[in-house]
Amino acid sequence: MRSVSIIGVGCTKFGERWDVSLRDMVSEAGVMAIEDAEITGEDIDALFVGNMSAGRFVEQEHIGALIADFAGLSRLHLPSTRVEAACASGGLALRQAVLAVASGYNDIVIAAGVEKMTDVSSGSAADALAAAADREWECFFGATFPALYAMMAKLHMRRFGTTHDQMAEVAVKNHHHACLNPIAQYHTEITVEDVDRSPVVADPLHVLDCSPISDGAAVVVLAPTEIAKRFCDTPIRIVGSAQASDTLALHDRRDLTTLDATVHAARKAYAQARITPDQVDVAEVHDCFTIAEILAIEDLGFVEKGEGGKAAEEGLTALGGRLPINTSGGLKACGHPVGATGIKQAYEIALQLRGEAGRRQVEDAEIGLAHNVGGSGGTALVHIFSR
Amino acid sequence: MRSVSIIGVGCTKFGERWDVSLRDMVSEAGVMAIEDAEITGEDIDALFVGNMSAGRFVEQEHIGALIADFAGLSRLHLPSTRVEAACASGGLALRQAVLAVASGYNDIVIAAGVEKMTDVSSGSAADALAAAADREWECFFGATFPALYAMMAKLHMRRFGTTHDQMAEVAVKNHHHACLNPIAQYHTEITVEDVDRSPVVADPLHVLDCSPISDGAAVVVLAPTEIAKRFCDTPIRIVGSAQASDTLALHDRRDLTTLDATVHAARKAYAQARITPDQVDVAEVHDCFTIAEILAIEDLGFVEKGEGGKAAEEGLTALGGRLPINTSGGLKACGHPVGATGIKQAYEIALQLRGEAGRRQVEDAEIGLAHNVGGSGGTALVHIFSR
Repeated sequence: MRSVSIIGVGCTKFGERWDVSLRDMVSEAGVMAIEDAEITGEDIDALFVGNMSAGRFVEQEHIGALIADFAGLSRLHLPSTRVEAACASGGLALRQAVLAVASGYNDIVIAAGVEKMTDVSSGSAADALAAAADREWECFFGATFPALYAMMAKLHMRRFGTTHDQMAEVAVKNHHHACLNPIAQYHTEITVEDVDRSPVVADPLHVLDCSPISDGAAVVVLAPTEIAKRFCDTPIRIVGSAQASDTLALHDRRDLTTLDATVHAARKAYAQARITPDQVDVAEVHDCFTIAEILAIEDLGFVEKGEGGKAAEEGLTALGGRLPINTSGGLKACGHPVGATGIKQAYEIALQLRGEAGRRQVEDAEIGLAHNVGGSGGTALVHIFSR
Repeated sequence: MRSVSIIGVGCTKFGERWDVSLRDMVSEAGVMAIEDAEITGEDIDALFVGNMSAGRFVEQEHIGALIADFAGLSRLHLPSTRVEAACASGGLALRQAVLAVASGYNDIVIAAGVEKMTDVSSGSAADALAAAADREWECFFGATFPALYAMMAKLHMRRFGTTHDQMAEVAVKNHHHACLNPIAQYHTEITVEDVDRSPVVADPLHVLDCSPISDGAAVVVLAPTEIAKRFCDTPIRIVGSAQASDTLALHDRRDLTTLDATVHAARKAYAQARITPDQVDVAEVHDCFTIAEILAIEDLGFVEKGEGGKAAEEGLTALGGRLPINTSGGLKACGHPVGATGIKQAYEIALQLRGEAGRRQVEDAEIGLAHNVGGSGGTALVHIFSR
């Protein structure tokens, strides 16, 4: 397998993008990434795009061919493949693109992620998102994602003494980080009291414990590391790429306070990268709800199981802490256009490792990690990056 | 790149399967394929599943993890990836699985395809299918798939003198083939007069020119050829695998009587396989409408451009003809559960090359081809198989 590097990145502003359509956003991010990599369309061998549910959100499938078409590449008849693993669709697109280059099958490959979620009502959006869970055994009985993560939160609180204030600290931190990120959906500082006073969605989760409904697209350009320097002064190597699955339904899981898919994907990715979790300098993790970030930093081995809440409370995971988590603002505050999130995570880590993250730069960041989850943990992707 | 072979196949009955759900069907076909390959779950390294629109049809996304879960494989935490390219989703899953094995990244890989279309009204199904075309520039203006293919048919008739009776011959032939295939949706012989007398959907296409709404699933198991004999007496090698894209919208195309994506994918697949079209003994091609089979056999190089109608009329493409096309009954009469079709094509070709196609067996078939199209040609996949 060949070493693979990121040679270009692009990302739209995340938020309620009523001025543009899905195809506009992916073109916008694509142009940024292609210009960043200083390549032309003729250099591209293949495209992969992560998208969860454009069929439901904008009544459009066939997203692979669509993005090649709207990028002006249809005359080249490139293979363009849409992949889907719910909210992990972006990370899955990245992994398929990595494999295409690592295998020697392709040289220059585009990995894109996109979701346009605000063209439907929030009720329709919630129902579309529920399609990431087990429709027949969870959603038909009334469970939505806040309810599923609330159950995980409840058990984590009971078993490890985690408090809602600790969860709220995750939201406070990620909103602070987002204030430093130009593309973030929210540029609003919040407090623990704000989270507590916000309406309860599914006890113990309040509105401000939840990531928003968002529009956005992100693109990265990959190349074999051996030729990456031709295109780019600071290629970022992808030194680990792993994917794992688990049951869709929570009730079939071994344990509700651990996402086994994360644990398995992380183990493989660390082994590929030949590093241990304590060598990671900066990470983007899947904080679809505040409790999800707490589970993630435990399952990724950054802290002991049960210590995730305390880590947030003590500032370990804030900018300036031992391991800054979600410097982009995370899903919580940068926004969560579901198919785009996994690629936006790679975008953020690439900026950090290049030293181009501006006011949210983590000093001397050399190794970064991105963690993307589908549903309540039915799929997990872990990627490790190195300067 | 390593040589890749099919070591097991399975396919459900196609049709209106109101007795089972999407997950039941994919498990049913999966068990058949796994038993056929004489492997166990522990042998499997990865899964790929083609599905077009379960989000619309059964309100379920996250199909990769779902099928691993319902196959009882969740304890293994295998990577399981859903891919989508509209009606070419199955062929796309096959290609991703081929690449995973060819690259040396995985050994035993499952390629599945599934669609459950009959749980919604036929109007809803037609609208879901329209998401394969360009929603903003075609469907919002009233175009559906019969209308798009009708335009191609009209131009083909004007330019090459193709007649509707010639198109009807495609339907007559494929219904006859389907009568010989136990899994086919229709076991009904029809005549040219039946096609002519059936209601017009979009002139010149009648109801009996159109493939039906169907439920079904198909699965193939792939392995490196070097170890395939351990599992299977008659492994079928995949000697060509290619994918190409084109504009989603017809009005952006160079020519409406050719699918350029088919031409490009075929050229690559023939080059990989080092064969010419006249060496193909049996082929499954994408006959979503009768005109589509005529375009396909021209674009694949089996007959000259403009000669496709005559080929059907003269029996060239029937069982017993020079090049039997769609011995399964094709999309037209075997049925077209869109995400399953590309894998069902591989299933049929594998049976033919093994000599296990029963009453529809093509004698001494050594080389087979499968051709799967997304939308009106935005994506095309071509696979070539050898005994």
